[in-house]
Parts: sequence; C-alpha cells; structure tokens
Amino acid sequence: MAKKPGIPKGTRDFSPTEVARRQYIMQTIRHGFEKFGFHPIETPSFENLDTLLGKYGEEGDRLIFKILNSGDYLSKVDETILESKNSLKLTNQISEKALRYDLTVPFARYVVMHQNEIDFPFKRYQMQPVWRADRPQKGRYREFYQCDADVIGSKSLWQEVEFVTLYDRVFTALGVHGVTIKLNNRKILSGIAEVIGASDKLIDFTVALDKLDKIGEDGVKAEMIEKGIEAEAIDKVKLLFNFTGTFEEKLEKLRQLLATSEEGTKGVEELAFVGKEVEKIGLATAKLNLDVTLARGLNYYTGAIFEIGAPETVKLGSIGGGGRYDDLTGIFGLKDMSGVGISFGLDRIYLVMEELNLFPEAVNAASKVMFLNMGEEEMSYSMQAVMKLRDAGVKTELYPDKAKVGKQFQFADKKGIPFAVLVGSEEMSNNKFTLKELASGEQTVVSLEELIERLK
Amino acid sequence: MAKKPGIPKGTRDFSPTEVARRQYIMQTIRHGFEKFGFHPIETPSFENLDTLLGKYGEEGDRLIFKILNSGDYLSKVDETILESKNSLKLTNQISEKALRYDLTVPFARYVVMHQNEIDFPFKRYQMQPVWRADRPQKGRYREFYQCDADVIGSKSLWQEVEFVTLYDRVFTALGVHGVTIKLNNRKILSGIAEVIGASDKLIDFTVALDKLDKIGEDGVKAEMIEKGIEAEAIDKVKLLFNFTGTFEEKLEKLRQLLATSEEGTKGVEELAFVGKEVEKIGLATAKLNLDVTLARGLNYYTGAIFEIGAPETVKLGSIGGGGRYDDLTGIFGLKDMSGVGISFGLDRIYLVMEELNLFPEAVNAASKVMFLNMGEEEMSYSMQAVMKLRDAGVKTELYPDKAKVGKQFQFADKKGIPFAVLVGSEEMSNNKFTLKELASGEQTVVSLEELIERLK
Repeated sequence: MAKKPGIPKGTRDFSPTEVARRQYIMQTIRHGFEKFGFHPIETPSFENLDTLLGKYGEEGDRLIFKILNSGDYLSKVDETILESKNSLKLTNQISEKALRYDLTVPFARYVVMHQNEIDFPFKRYQMQPVWRADRPQKGRYREFYQCDADVIGSKSLWQEVEFVTLYDRVFTALGVHGVTIKLNNRKILSGIAEVIGASDKLIDFTVALDKLDKIGEDGVKAEMIEKGIEAEAIDKVKLLFNFTGTFEEKLEKLRQLLATSEEGTKGVEELAFVGKEVEKIGLATAKLNLDVTLARGLNYYTGAIFEIGAPETVKLGSIGGGGRYDDLTGIFGLKDMSGVGISFGLDRIYLVMEELNLFPEAVNAASKVMFLNMGEEEMSYSMQAVMKLRDAGVKTELYPDKAKVGKQFQFADKKGIPFAVLVGSEEMSNNKFTLKELASGEQTVVSLEELIERLK
Repeated sequence: MAKKPGIPKGTRDFSPTEVARRQYIMQTIRHGFEKFGFHPIETPSFENLDTLLGKYGEEGDRLIFKILNSGDYLSKVDETILESKNSLKLTNQISEKALRYDLTVPFARYVVMHQNEIDFPFKRYQMQPVWRADRPQKGRYREFYQCDADVIGSKSLWQEVEFVTLYDRVFTALGVHGVTIKLNNRKILSGIAEVIGASDKLIDFTVALDKLDKIGEDGVKAEMIEKGIEAEAIDKVKLLFNFTGTFEEKLEKLRQLLATSEEGTKGVEELAFVGKEVEKIGLATAKLNLDVTLARGLNYYTGAIFEIGAPETVKLGSIGGGGRYDDLTGIFGLKDMSGVGISFGLDRIYLVMEELNLFPEAVNAASKVMFLNMGEEEMSYSMQAVMKLRDAGVKTELYPDKAKVGKQFQFADKKGIPFAVLVGSEEMSNNKFTLKELASGEQTVVSLEELIERLK
C-alpha cells in the first residue's frame, strides 16, 4: 500500500503553471474559433466500440483503448474462445466501449445522430482529450488534447480562405509569429500522379521530392528511380525541381505541368482562388506557401490540404494541419456531406512558446497578494480586506497557520506571490495595512481603499 | 455499418448552447477558486489500477471502469483462471489501468508523487471528468465533471471559514441566491454517539432525526427505537428534537448536550469559531445553517462537514459538499497531512440555473452577425469588414454558399444570430454596408467604422 505511487506510462500530471499555460493557449484558440463563427460541442470520452473500430485502419484499431465490461463479463463468453486464448476474438465479447481515438469520428457520429437539430452548414469546434495506445516517446503521449474546428455541409472554397486566416489570427494572438501555412490540394497530387503515370508511387514521389533541399536534384531523382518511377516520367515533372517563386509563380508552373490533367487543373484553380482571396484579406504574421510535397491524409483528404510549420528558428516540424474530405459522415449512413477542418497541436505549440519564451508574465497560477498570519485577532481584522480584494477580482490568499514571519515570507516568495500584507496592533488601531512588495522589499502603510487601488 | 449510431448509456453529447452554459458555470467557479488563492492541477484520465482499487469500498471497486491491456493480453494469463471463468480474478491479469472514479484519490497520489516540488499548505483546484459504472438514471451519469478545491497540509480552521465564504461568493456570482450552507462537524456526531452510547447506530440516528419535519417527534422516536436505540439514550439528546434558533442558540444547546464529551465539546468550539468569523465577514446571498443531521462522508471526514442546499424554491437537494479529512495521503505513504476540501456539483447547478432561468442572455454559442453571400465579388468585398469585426472581438460568420436570400436569413434566424449584413453593387460602389437587425427588421446603411461601432 505504501509503495511510492506512479502514473501510467505516456500520461502526465500538470502542475499549476503548466495548467495555466495550457489554458492560456486553449482560451486563445477558443476565442479565435468563436470569432470565426464556430460553435463548441462535446462528446463522451468513450464511444461504443463499433463506432470507432474500422475507422483508423488495422493499426489504429490496435491503438484504441478498450474498456472492460462491468460485472461478471466472462459469464456469457463462448468457452472455445477462452480455450483458444485468442485475445483479438475475446475483446469483442468482453468490451463494448472504447476511449475516443480522435475528435473527427465522434464528430461524424454526432452529426449523423443530431442531423435533425443541426442547421447546415455546421461549424463546430471541439477541444477535448483523446487516447492512443501508442508507444510513448518524447512529445508523444497516450493522452493528449486535440483542438479541432470543422465545417460540414458546404463545398464553398470560402471555408478554405477562412481557415487560412483563422490560423494566422490565432498564432498572431498567441505571439507565435512567422508560422508557415503550407497549402496543397489533393487534386494536384492526383494530377501529378496522372502525369507521371504512377498513382501507386505518389507517396514515394512526394517523400523524395521533399528532400530536394537536403540531397539536391540528382539525389532526389536517384531515389525516385530506386523506388521504381520511370526516368521519362520524372522528366515530365521536371518543373517541380525548380519549384520556387511567389505563390502565383508556383501556380503558373503547376498550370503548365498539369494542363493535360482535368483534375490537376481543377486543383490549381482551387488553390488560385484561395491564394488570391487570402492575399486580398492579408495575413497578420503568417506566411502562405504552396507546397506540393505536402501529402498528409492522402487517404481521406479530397481537396485542400493544410499544414502549419513552426517558426523557422524552432526545429519542431508541424504544429497543426487539416484538409477537406468529401464524405465524412458516409461511414454512419449520411451521404454527400463535404467537410473541411483544421487542428491545432496543443502540446507542440506549448513547446514552441516555451522555447521562444512567449508566455506572458501574467500567465501563471500565482496569487497577487498574501496576508501574513500574525495571530487570530490580526487575521480576523484582515478578513474584511481579504474579501474586498477578492470581490474586486484580486487573487488573494492568506497564510493559514501562525508561523514565524520569515517562514511565511519565504512561502510567498517560493510561490511567486509579488505582494504581502502585514497587520499588527498598530495597523489595527489605525485601521491601516502594511503592504510589502517582495521583490524590492519596499513597505508602505495604506488604507483599505489604497490597498485595493494598488493591487487591482 | 450504416445503422444509426448511438452513444453508450449514461453518457451525453453536449450541444453548442449546453457547452456554452457549462463553460459559463465552470469559468465562474474557476474565477472563484483563483480569487481565493487556489491553483489548478490536472491528472491523467486513467490511473494505475492499484492506485484506485481499495479506496472506495467494495462497491466502489466494482464501479471503476477498467481498461483492457493492449496487444495479446491473454498470452500471459494463467489458464486455470480462464477455465474457471472467474471475471474478478481475470480482471487483474488483463487490466492494469482504470478511469479515475473521483478527483480526491488522484489528488492524494499527486501530492505524494510531487511532495518535493510542493510548498505546503497546498491549495489546489481541479475540474475534470470522472467515470463511474453506476446504473444510469435521471441526473446520474457515467461520465460527469467534478469541480473540487482542497487545501492540504494545514489544520487551521481559517480554511473552513474560507470555504464557507467561497461557496457564498461563487453562488452569488452565478446568480444562484439563497443557497443554504449546511455545516456540521464529525466530532459533534462522535459526541452524540458517545452520549447515546451507540456509535454503531449513528447513521440510523441521524437519518431518523432528519425526518423530524416530516414525521414529527413521535415518529422519529419510534423509528429510533425500531432501529435499536434505547429510549433512555434518546431522552439524553432530547434537546435535538427542538433544535431551532440562530446558529449561536443551536451551539448553546450542543454545548449543554455534549458537555460530558471531550470530543463533542471540541466540535462545538470548532463550529463556534467558524460561525463567528463567517458572521464577521458577512455572506453576500447564502445562509449558514448548523445541521446536526448532516452526516455525509462519515467514514472519512474527521472535522467540518459541508453541504449546499439548493435555493428553497427548487426541489433538488444537495448541489455541493465537502469536509475535513485528517489523513488523505496516508494511503500512499505520506502521513499526517490534514486536508479539507469542497466540491461543486456541476450538473445539479446547471439544472438549478435552468429552472430558475439564471443563464445570462449573452451565454450562448451564437455569432453576433452573419454576412450574406450575394456572390463571389460581394463576398470578396465583404471579407475586409468580416476580418476587422473579428479583430475587434465580434463573433462574425459568413454564409459560405450562394443561396436565396430568404434561405440565408432563415439560417441566421434559426441559429439566433441577431444581425445580418447585406452587400450589393450599390454598397460596393459607395463603400458601405447594409446592417439589418433581424428581430425588428430595421435596416441601416453604414460605413465600416459605423458597422464596427454598432456591433462591438
């Protein structure tokens, strides 16, 4: 019983400072979502197992945390399954629920269940934890928050324009300036696949192309050939090896390259619309970049693909992403609902802000002032002031036990409380308070009104 | 696959309005906690199974949701257990983690694990969901939030004073006026048990006494005798059958009644201190009531016991509670840490506020204004205004697709959006916007600056 307790691997305790900082990030994202007209929903932490299974591929199914049925869950289990010791088969018999693996499938389930209450297009955001039985490693946890915004029921490209500006405004508000909003389109990738005549090699192609900066044109070509892409095909897309310039210049190159592909050309036009409207609106601190190597979510995205690169000084990779998917709710029987959504990577954003020292001074859990405990009578006298300060919105605590003054000051100091109030017989008879600023050591005797004024 | 999806029994989806209202309650409680010097922590949703088991009694152990181990969890299981189909024995072999059942045990585990980083007394608050495999019924769910504040490492009675005033201030801020803060003390209950000479009958005694209003003195006495309490013992505490008057008058009765009990007398003095200091401070809208029938948490509380009664016009019972426990962290090997804490019942408070119509008008998820979509050119013109409004903090959305104006107005109306903006060729050439208030139908043509001014 008395052995030192621990927590499951891949999970975390959050200290007061960490909670305050995480809440600051989440509040800023939340305000961004709401200003852009998104509405919050919340779904249960666990879903019926059959809602989740089969939605994330075989590997995903394995990583879903299943919840054991309550009570005598073995009583109805087929004995042959027990005898065979087949874990996979037994799971379905002793588990009916599982912790959600992401927020997208629960959202699709929500939309289908509540379709008669919802006015489409439906703009929802959701900020809740998800769980994955992944092997834990640096920056990868078994419990983590996702912060998602999606629109469902509209094919309008204005949604893509909105998401680009939303990313810009939220990162600007967080002080994370200079993020790169990478934009691509699934249809452009399909066009490239068409042109190189090898749609099954698309991932190999984009992975190799992404290494251009590191291994140069010859290196990339060698890798492509090694992966089985024909030299002739590579030659057809040679424009991509010199894929520089402005958004508009890149678009022009793609127009040429994909002229023979109907789908590719459609992708170019979609990107052109988004690029043009975003430029007219103007981004506050982010940069928009057309990146044809961006191939995330290739299996489900059907239009725009987004990814957010951290500011260049930080080596952290992606801190957000998303895209358009044409049939999110089809898995639950509601057809033809186009959706588009983005996600903010809370843990990564936290690391970026920590590294760049971007958390405002005021974002911490410390109280503003502590009243010292000089005895019962003094405390009793102090309580009126304590409550008036709180009613005025000042975070105020009191040292609960009578202790040496030095110890009490040390306590306030360790906790980062900037002010202390002392009350002795003199203060009580004059109806005053001694306010001490701990950093400077400066002390002033003040009235209650002055005290509130100083600390508010 | 296409069958209509559902959610596990006892769980809930929350709509945008419900999330907005729940967040309003939680924000208000959070501000209260912080103004009183409490700091937030968060712990993982699941704990190691052995952290939780044995802490909530046999019934509690049954109601804990266990998580199935990942991978081939049966491979190491003893075959005789499988053959015996003993669910209870198998659980420990195939499950190492479980969803938290409350926030108190994880808090104790946190304190012990992080004792070297914590400066005591430690005032923490925590607002996170907990899970119980209880039979679902009206107002009882399998997933629900707890909102707890505790102080650990201080025996000072000022903590009790603080919690009474904290309850008062939070319910006042929520607009829930007239709650009753019921106060009792475990030592008084022990004193009564001593006086009636039947400590094993204490629960029966308080349950019967609690029915005084309903079944009268004779009824209560009959029930007590039926439960095996001696008539002579009942006579010794007859003062409790006329237990009315002010806080001070009730205390006086208890002083007499418990004069022979050292522990009971100590309980009276503790209550007297809290009552006196609370009265000096003054409660804004709550009432303090000494209630000797309050016997919640009899197994773990050692001092003060709190319970919050909803305003009398609402028949809802307890909407919060707490108490002092002398050895919270002992179960994890850290001795002599006295703690005291309270909890707000989020779901019940929600019901009270709904019934009394206390949610402010502004607490909903609706946007303030929607820009109609009159075509691509008009949208493109509108976007500057859309973004300026958002940058000014106004929740602004746009109708993403070109559709009949009537349909677009209907959409805004259904969603409770109070204003709409229309842009046509005239507005564009004059650099203006037509602002329509949907309720009155009133339309005005305004400049961008006026638009922001009107909607801010």
